[in-house]
Amino acid sequence: MGLHARQRQISLKLIFFFDGLAKPGKVNNSVGSLVTGGNVEKIPGLNTLGVSLSRIDYAPDGLNPPHTHPRATEMIFVLEGELDVGFITTANKLISKTVKKGEVFVFPRGLVHFQKNNGDKAASVISAFNSQLPGTQSIAMTLFTSTPAVPDNVLTKAFQVGTKEIDKIKTKLAPKKS
Amino acid sequence: MGLHARQRQISLKLIFFFDGLAKPGKVNNSVGSLVTGGNVEKIPGLNTLGVSLSRIDYAPDGLNPPHTHPRATEMIFVLEGELDVGFITTANKLISKTVKKGEVFVFPRGLVHFQKNNGDKAASVISAFNSQLPGTQSIAMTLFTSTPAVPDNVLTKAFQVGTKEIDKIKTKLAPKKS
Amino acid sequence: MGLHARQRQISLKLIFFFDGLAKPGKVNNSVGSLVTGGNVEKIPGLNTLGVSLSRIDYAPDGLNPPHTHPRATEMIFVLEGELDVGFITTANKLISKTVKKGEVFVFPRGLVHFQKNNGDKAASVISAFNSQLPGTQSIAMTLFTSTPAVPDNVLTKAFQVGTKEIDKIKTKLAPKKS
Amino acid sequence: MGLHARQRQISLKLIFFFDGLAKPGKVNNSVGSLVTGGNVEKIPGLNTLGVSLSRIDYAPDGLNPPHTHPRATEMIFVLEGELDVGFITTANKLISKTVKKGEVFVFPRGLVHFQKNNGDKAASVISAFNSQLPGTQSIAMTLFTSTPAVPDNVLTKAFQVGTKEIDKIKTKLAPKKS
Amino acid sequence: MGLHARQRQISLKLIFFFDGLAKPGKVNNSVGSLVTGGNVEKIPGLNTLGVSLSRIDYAPDGLNPPHTHPRATEMIFVLEGELDVGFITTANKLISKTVKKGEVFVFPRGLVHFQKNNGDKAASVISAFNSQLPGTQSIAMTLFTSTPAVPDNVLTKAFQVGTKEIDKIKTKLAPKKS
Amino acid sequence: MGLHARQRQISLKLIFFFDGLAKPGKVNNSVGSLVTGGNVEKIPGLNTLGVSLSRIDYAPDGLNPPHTHPRATEMIFVLEGELDVGFITTANKLISKTVKKGEVFVFPRGLVHFQKNNGDKAASVISAFNSQLPGTQSIAMTLFTSTPAVPDNVLTKAFQVGTKEIDKIKTKLAPKKS
Repeated sequence: MGLHARQRQISLKLIFFFDGLAKPGKVNNSVGSLVTGGNVEKIPGLNTLGVSLSRIDYAPDGLNPPHTHPRATEMIFVLEGELDVGFITTANKLISKTVKKGEVFVFPRGLVHFQKNNGDKAASVISAFNSQLPGTQSIAMTLFTSTPAVPDNVLTKAFQVGTKEIDKIKTKLAPKKS
Repeated sequence: MGLHARQRQISLKLIFFFDGLAKPGKVNNSVGSLVTGGNVEKIPGLNTLGVSLSRIDYAPDGLNPPHTHPRATEMIFVLEGELDVGFITTANKLISKTVKKGEVFVFPRGLVHFQKNNGDKAASVISAFNSQLPGTQSIAMTLFTSTPAVPDNVLTKAFQVGTKEIDKIKTKLAPKKS
Repeated sequence: MGLHARQRQISLKLIFFFDGLAKPGKVNNSVGSLVTGGNVEKIPGLNTLGVSLSRIDYAPDGLNPPHTHPRATEMIFVLEGELDVGFITTANKLISKTVKKGEVFVFPRGLVHFQKNNGDKAASVISAFNSQLPGTQSIAMTLFTSTPAVPDNVLTKAFQVGTKEIDKIKTKLAPKKS
Repeated sequence: MGLHARQRQISLKLIFFFDGLAKPGKVNNSVGSLVTGGNVEKIPGLNTLGVSLSRIDYAPDGLNPPHTHPRATEMIFVLEGELDVGFITTANKLISKTVKKGEVFVFPRGLVHFQKNNGDKAASVISAFNSQLPGTQSIAMTLFTSTPAVPDNVLTKAFQVGTKEIDKIKTKLAPKKS
Repeated sequence: MGLHARQRQISLKLIFFFDGLAKPGKVNNSVGSLVTGGNVEKIPGLNTLGVSLSRIDYAPDGLNPPHTHPRATEMIFVLEGELDVGFITTANKLISKTVKKGEVFVFPRGLVHFQKNNGDKAASVISAFNSQLPGTQSIAMTLFTSTPAVPDNVLTKAFQVGTKEIDKIKTKLAPKKS
Repeated sequence: MGLHARQRQISLKLIFFFDGLAKPGKVNNSVGSLVTGGNVEKIPGLNTLGVSLSRIDYAPDGLNPPHTHPRATEMIFVLEGELDVGFITTANKLISKTVKKGEVFVFPRGLVHFQKNNGDKAASVISAFNSQLPGTQSIAMTLFTSTPAVPDNVLTKAFQVGTKEIDKIKTKLAPKKS
């Protein structure tokens, strides 16, 4: 095998490989959790293959806030710690459970779900998706921090509170200036 | 054609037909809007065919609150009135527009979206979905009125407010007893 | 938001919007009907989203002649007037019904179907498709006016008539010279 | 292996096997051709597998009349003889060709197509479909012989001829009484 | 029709046509069989249409060795001769049968299968796939002749034999130098 | 909530949960590895959701022998240890790499692949699949231990060795009697 063929061989194997999920993400943020994606944007070989993985880390008391994935079902495997997890069905039932190291739980396609670390030590999971690019919408951030902003009269009517409460949430969720 | 064959013929045509979208829905509720579904639960002939229609009616000031359809893209056609509509992308951009009678707008699969009637007369739309049963999750109701309830410490952390604000929203959104 | 960002924002919203279905199409043609498409060719944001809308207008006595959509199921909602509609199954059964304002009817994927305005006033429908580009083959035009022409011995044998009858239909259906 | 296991083994292999395409079909009918299906109705093992085969036989001068398959693309391989084949695109172009023994031709999903034996000896093809049950609508039979009948005013307007010509075709295509 | 339009017409028909399956392939190789593909690489018009055909020829005693198609179900039609064919299920059952001229057999998506000509004359089949590019992995070649080589300790452990036996197979299967 | 509703709630959450992947599988077998499935057969809630997880454990020197999944792409995340992994493309190239704790690798749909623990301590991975029931064919077992057996003349020709070598492999791979 010549030099060029060898180089091509090396490149080829790297598009199916990723080491970015090996280390815990930094969780010193307002919700105490971080999602690190291992999708087609990082792993070009996933293109058209319809699968991807993420790693999620949680500080004690950390929360992966209620969110949806528009294009995939998610299935988690607990690497460390213990989490209270749940999703809400279209019939408005909460399906929730405490899951421990080595246990798995399913969040069906497109439904709002969350994971909360109520333990006193760090936790982490590996998440599998049946999409190479599942996408994520974090509900609170979507409604209260988008650019431009969702109109106030949409939020006050949706949550049935006044602009004072809405503004309070907006202020709390606004990205910190540094 | 004998009696039985004639009856079968009549039954067959009815599974592809629906008249439940002809009249405006009742919008005297807290958000001032009502969605009437024309999906496979009402129209058995839609089974496996991957399409459905809904009608949405809006009182003046009415809102179809932020929600998602886990299994479909939606495309609206304005029957009457004028609406301010929008969806938020996974990059947290709000894509919004005022749409008038006869105009159409697209809400991509699984993304949070809403329609608000800021005019002073009633409005209505026909919605098309590429699923015979798209499903709906109304975000505020999902988070604040599910059974059992989403835990308070999930909501306070997600919205970065205290239990007082959360309880206020829960109380406001709770189904009225009659 | 700077000028460029604002311009990009405006462009983005427009790819999900279309106002070309708002007004009735011109129906002063030989069949007395016109289909106006609202698909991915007009609405770029529909790309990969698998849904589209059309508007169809019918003069009194107007006909949307028997045709198929190779890539989609269709579901109509009657905006105005009254139509006699039908499709033929692969078991050669005609499933037909009169549909009035606000009623809906389903034409399953790929099957020959038609709508006829037997009333004395104009009619119109909104059609939903589970494809961003469903395609259309109008049967009579396909068989009798294609370029090059379908061979006469195919048509005479298919319809079991002579070339005289075939030529008559061809002449009648030929595009008018202006 | 016991008797029961052996019987199950035999049954199992038979659901993936079919010998009904081995012999030419009878072509002594009005169009001089016959389609013999090898789909999931005959070969239960095809269920969910998304493929099927048919055999088509043609007398000299025989025609497989213009038709569509609502759920599949078709690809033919000529077993014997020579055929003039074609399909019409949604842009109303006829794509046609003479194909000989061993040659193949593609009829894209849902488009009207036909095969005509203009040679002086019998011809036959094997057709492959990407559906276990592609379905067929023979255009002339669909429009002129369905039960109930397609209304006359639909046919006269679609073909732009009078009821005399329509009735003539209906009479010619009507199933023979025996 | 002008010259350019005519040329375009000719080009268009050719992308749906292929004559490369008309003649038997050369079977004077170590396994006594040859597969000739009629897929999207040869027939550009198949793009996105999800179907393709191959021809397989077998010398007496010829074998199409155990292999898989990663992206398709296969269905064969015997053109000439007689073959012993089989596939193995994921429950490790061999489903096998002798198939003769004109008979068909199904090899479900992704499962290992083979065809063996145990007769004393040549045989051939047409294979249909529900993919425009099904792909093929010939098992023995994949394991014993890839570049770079599958490591010896993978093969010895998988087959539970020593390197002597593995080397023997590698030597036998290695491409002949000319 | 009454007793029945509570029981239904408990049942519902359990169909989305599984604890069978928490502990290492027993690897005291001839290949030194064990796959434990977490698919729809164990987790009923996965039905139609198109995703599943497995756990694979490897003793030192353990091998997950070359195999395919007929219905899914696989993506592994290394829980412990270090593995030499690879797949072979349809162009007969081996794409291989050493992967360590926390690293991921992709095995595209339907292609032959393997994992070998060349380290001196135990290893384990979590595997994600984009199918709720991906299926597995272990190549050597499929070819040499199926019931009934794959005919000898298929194996000798495929591997280009004599019945002696084939019989040796068959004997080595045969299930042990206890």
